[in-house]
Amino acid sequence: MSKAKFIVIEGLEGAGKSTAINTVLNELARLGVDDVLNTREPGGTVLAEKMRALVKEEHDGEPLQDRTELLLMYAARIQLVETVIKPALAKGTWVIGDRHDMSSQAYQGGGRQIDADVMMSLKQIALADFKPDFTLYLDIDPTLGLQRARGRGELDRIEKMDIGFFERTRRRYLELAQGDSSVAVVNAGQDIEAVQASIRQALQTWFNGHSDD
Amino acid sequence: MSKAKFIVIEGLEGAGKSTAINTVLNELARLGVDDVLNTREPGGTVLAEKMRALVKEEHDGEPLQDRTELLLMYAARIQLVETVIKPALAKGTWVIGDRHDMSSQAYQGGGRQIDADVMMSLKQIALADFKPDFTLYLDIDPTLGLQRARGRGELDRIEKMDIGFFERTRRRYLELAQGDSSVAVVNAGQDIEAVQASIRQALQTWFNGHSDD
Repeated sequence: MSKAKFIVIEGLEGAGKSTAINTVLNELARLGVDDVLNTREPGGTVLAEKMRALVKEEHDGEPLQDRTELLLMYAARIQLVETVIKPALAKGTWVIGDRHDMSSQAYQGGGRQIDADVMMSLKQIALADFKPDFTLYLDIDPTLGLQRARGRGELDRIEKMDIGFFERTRRRYLELAQGDSSVAVVNAGQDIEAVQASIRQALQTWFNGHSDD
Repeated sequence: MSKAKFIVIEGLEGAGKSTAINTVLNELARLGVDDVLNTREPGGTVLAEKMRALVKEEHDGEPLQDRTELLLMYAARIQLVETVIKPALAKGTWVIGDRHDMSSQAYQGGGRQIDADVMMSLKQIALADFKPDFTLYLDIDPTLGLQRARGRGELDRIEKMDIGFFERTRRRYLELAQGDSSVAVVNAGQDIEAVQASIRQALQTWFNGHSDD
């Protein structure tokens, strides 16, 4: 491939995003791609990480409004895309994103049930036509995912939501994946070797299909 | 008046908003209104004050994107309106706001020249039909206003913008005031006693015209 690509890893808590990112990095290196930058959302710049803290942490018990959360997510996304992702891609560096816009669509649009019109307006304001070249969505039953996430220790504000929230989020993820040929769905409920094999295969299939881009 | 009202003071840097707020508070007390809450934007809640700091301060030299700034302003506004202003009005407390949406329209829409479509979408997402009952816009030539503001000491990020930015902002303020009967324009370039007299008069005129609301 001649042009640098933006690859995103998506999925619920406990789906195994961190492991998947390492698998993708190793596989890309094997395919000859080694100029790669990792980002995470919300976050990835000095300012965006401060917005991440606003969303993730408690603030004297003040309830964060759903639309405040949504606008903070998009404020952080604009900052990351404009100051980090686009400049990296422009100089030929690949970018691997730990979450991107699909997370907002799934968590805020699906989980929190924010109006489709609002979601569409904000996406347009923040991103216009910018989108990932390839997305790996790690699909997992939220009960299993949360059980894994809880094993890691502290839960943040979002991870404390009820199971219905995560079921709506997963449903939206699957709907979005179905309608978008740039998204590959990996069954993240398998054992770790099987998940890694599925990720490698999905990545190779995409890579080979775009070798002349 | 039977219902609590939301009054907003608007104007460029150095227009005399703080003095005007005191004048309004005194005049309201004289008119029998003494259950009054002061707010400021961006800010006014624990979370919104943290967003204010993101907008006002420097962050390791990272350039704040115009649309990031805009979304932070609206995130802070939603948080303040939903957790402070609306609850106060509902229990009969008047609210005096040091800036509100007109500031975004003037500074981001006028000064930074962000698209009218974007401005309209965000206002709709954040506020729907919510708006101040009365706005006092303190009109001042930006050269004079900035001279006054500089006399107070440190300038923040926005106050360091060039004069053309403030001229566009003032022009938008005046356009908005012209098209909205709930906005009174006060000439803030007069001496302080004349400004205070104009504020008292504008407030009384509005108050008397709405005595049966």
